[in-house]
Amino acid sequence: MKKNALVAQSGGPTVVINASLAGVVDACLKAEEVGVVYGGCNGIEGILNGQIIDLGAQVATDELINTLKLTPSMALGSCRYKLPKEADAPEVYEKIRNILDTLNVGYFFYIGGNDSMDTAAKLGEYFARKGSDIRAIGVPKTIDDDLAVTDHTPGYGSAAKYIATSMMEVLRDVRSSNFQTVLVAEIMGRDAGFLTAAAAMPRFMGDVAPQLVYCPENVFDMQAFLADVEELLKTEKQIVVAVSEGIKFADGRYVCEGEDPTKAEVDSFGHKQLSGTASYLAQVCKEKFGIRVRSIEYGALQRCAAHCNSKVDVDEAFEIGHVAVKAAIAGETCKFVCVTRVSNDPYKVEMSLIDTKLVANEAKEVPADWFNEKKNNLNEKAAEYILPLIQGNIPLPEKNGMPDFIKLNLTDYVQF
Amino acid sequence: MKKNALVAQSGGPTVVINASLAGVVDACLKAEEVGVVYGGCNGIEGILNGQIIDLGAQVATDELINTLKLTPSMALGSCRYKLPKEADAPEVYEKIRNILDTLNVGYFFYIGGNDSMDTAAKLGEYFARKGSDIRAIGVPKTIDDDLAVTDHTPGYGSAAKYIATSMMEVLRDVRSSNFQTVLVAEIMGRDAGFLTAAAAMPRFMGDVAPQLVYCPENVFDMQAFLADVEELLKTEKQIVVAVSEGIKFADGRYVCEGEDPTKAEVDSFGHKQLSGTASYLAQVCKEKFGIRVRSIEYGALQRCAAHCNSKVDVDEAFEIGHVAVKAAIAGETCKFVCVTRVSNDPYKVEMSLIDTKLVANEAKEVPADWFNEKKNNLNEKAAEYILPLIQGNIPLPEKNGMPDFIKLNLTDYVQF
Repeated sequence: MKKNALVAQSGGPTVVINASLAGVVDACLKAEEVGVVYGGCNGIEGILNGQIIDLGAQVATDELINTLKLTPSMALGSCRYKLPKEADAPEVYEKIRNILDTLNVGYFFYIGGNDSMDTAAKLGEYFARKGSDIRAIGVPKTIDDDLAVTDHTPGYGSAAKYIATSMMEVLRDVRSSNFQTVLVAEIMGRDAGFLTAAAAMPRFMGDVAPQLVYCPENVFDMQAFLADVEELLKTEKQIVVAVSEGIKFADGRYVCEGEDPTKAEVDSFGHKQLSGTASYLAQVCKEKFGIRVRSIEYGALQRCAAHCNSKVDVDEAFEIGHVAVKAAIAGETCKFVCVTRVSNDPYKVEMSLIDTKLVANEAKEVPADWFNEKKNNLNEKAAEYILPLIQGNIPLPEKNGMPDFIKLNLTDYVQF
Repeated sequence: MKKNALVAQSGGPTVVINASLAGVVDACLKAEEVGVVYGGCNGIEGILNGQIIDLGAQVATDELINTLKLTPSMALGSCRYKLPKEADAPEVYEKIRNILDTLNVGYFFYIGGNDSMDTAAKLGEYFARKGSDIRAIGVPKTIDDDLAVTDHTPGYGSAAKYIATSMMEVLRDVRSSNFQTVLVAEIMGRDAGFLTAAAAMPRFMGDVAPQLVYCPENVFDMQAFLADVEELLKTEKQIVVAVSEGIKFADGRYVCEGEDPTKAEVDSFGHKQLSGTASYLAQVCKEKFGIRVRSIEYGALQRCAAHCNSKVDVDEAFEIGHVAVKAAIAGETCKFVCVTRVSNDPYKVEMSLIDTKLVANEAKEVPADWFNEKKNNLNEKAAEYILPLIQGNIPLPEKNGMPDFIKLNLTDYVQF
């Protein structure tokens, strides 16, 4: 007997979170065992509010599936809702189960990061414990690539490709001037430096590259940084530095809080202001060396630059959606789709289902042996890991010279 | 008898300034009348220092010309040198002429913005007045598109395409959240709003678009802005605002200087700090509405994003290089290559040679009738102008998942 499917998205945007969604929908639409493919708007929070659409009907052609696949950020909308423990809020679990039962949902897919994997695990366990046959599968994503167990996570490859590509371009911009200057680029990553490591990749092109790259895995030493810049300025006109937003001093304070804890930036409203890490370090260089400085914050641009997607990343994200659906139909639950790298040359991965508990709320960091001795740059181990993930690009469908993204009707809720 | 050519670049980077360079070199290499194609490193300043390379020899294949064509920022390096008037520094003019004569240069091409056109004009007039047959042709570029006389300038189309594309993506990022928020994006343009106008283009996709767009051509009224945001927040969760860095209050002060001239941001060094326009406006919204805010500064990214080039822009920039060479060979001097738009549908331009004096040091602004009545957005007149310029994309040659840009040897100077 056919069961329906419900899929939703949660957490922060990535370029390929819709590629995974497209993979889930595509596989469901093609599976005999699946009936209607519902989409939950704004994650579990929207599901609890009954904001559920007939997603399958809205992307019923291969062309629409492809458009969805190449659209960045959560087409279904997101939430940051942290599902409470069942003991603390049994009524929430019961409500979700009632909604799913009413809609005859047998397959539940949740696409997101650590928290979302946690949500999928909690719900799957609850369903199993209550004797329900609803299966819950987690579909991982994160630009930070800090999910445990899996080799890498969809979303990382495209963000890394954008950062590496953009650094190549920014280096050209900086190097075309004929005066001494320091440019500091700030990259996302509070605790994990995988994204910032991508900024070091131009070095493996045999061309100009950022001379200094700092990740949050290592303590940031201001004196060592300034000494490094001073040394570089003896022989080079333009210095490019890449930093994670999350780098910290030895005392545990973020670098963007400033070196002197008694001083703090004050904005025009008189409030203490945390400036960006990059702009702070650029300012320190300006004070110390009296030269022109600039800073760049990639911000949201690095997680939504679909026009610079990695083909490897998009295709894997889509395939992971398919794998999730196959697993659910085969009876798996409380699992997430894990990627294991089989070889780098040729690049090959295997996908498997792993107990969601192994990834939920766990984080991973850049391995210590990816850094050089001074911990101010990355070595070829980082390149071996990153380069296979940023290969190729799928051009976006274009209209009026701009990308033609999917347009979903997110207010046409199903009645139940 | 063959004469040699010398080409150099000046001013700020664009995505296609090397496409024009490639066009000049390509046309020179193919012209019977031209011998060696020299490149001046770091503009007229480098030429004065004898930093001249045999550029033609370094890009002698069609493949290398194509790689140069798709490499962003000045491959020859730039300068910000303002050529003095001849009366003030006749020795500078004499030195340049001596260098060119020694190298048997008969064709001089200078690629740049207003100042560079001014330099080309001054040199061309000097050569003519001294009875020299060296011809000086200006090849225009600017991302700001603020050059007088010409319909548009190479570099603008690609920057506009990046901004429009990126806004489409950022809108997806912002719209995927489920809380009220204001995002303010800051775009280059001190006096002209052509680039910022490109941020309004998503509106012509029938999809989400920035609700408010402010250009420096209109006085910025903080109370009107806050009233507009307040009104929008009644019906919409996420507000996206695009602003030119150069927007000003009625009293002529930049918005980034803050509304109250007696207050000023102070950084951790105790210095008065000009924060960005976007971050300032975001902060004002946070104070006023108590909601989450974000800001994005496109900065250098918008002028070097070669991976998001406009095919129309790249091809025109290359062709303008060809037109400049043909004109010089035909005996023209003190001219620059002007683009006239013949029709929009199909898009068609004509190129002609115009007296450089007409463009040097003149600037143009966004026409008043491109704005809506409230001056807080752009209308279809802007779209008619911009959309034809952002069509198509030429994929970059890729290596290791990153763009493979031209590598010139900029220290192998010719001896003279």
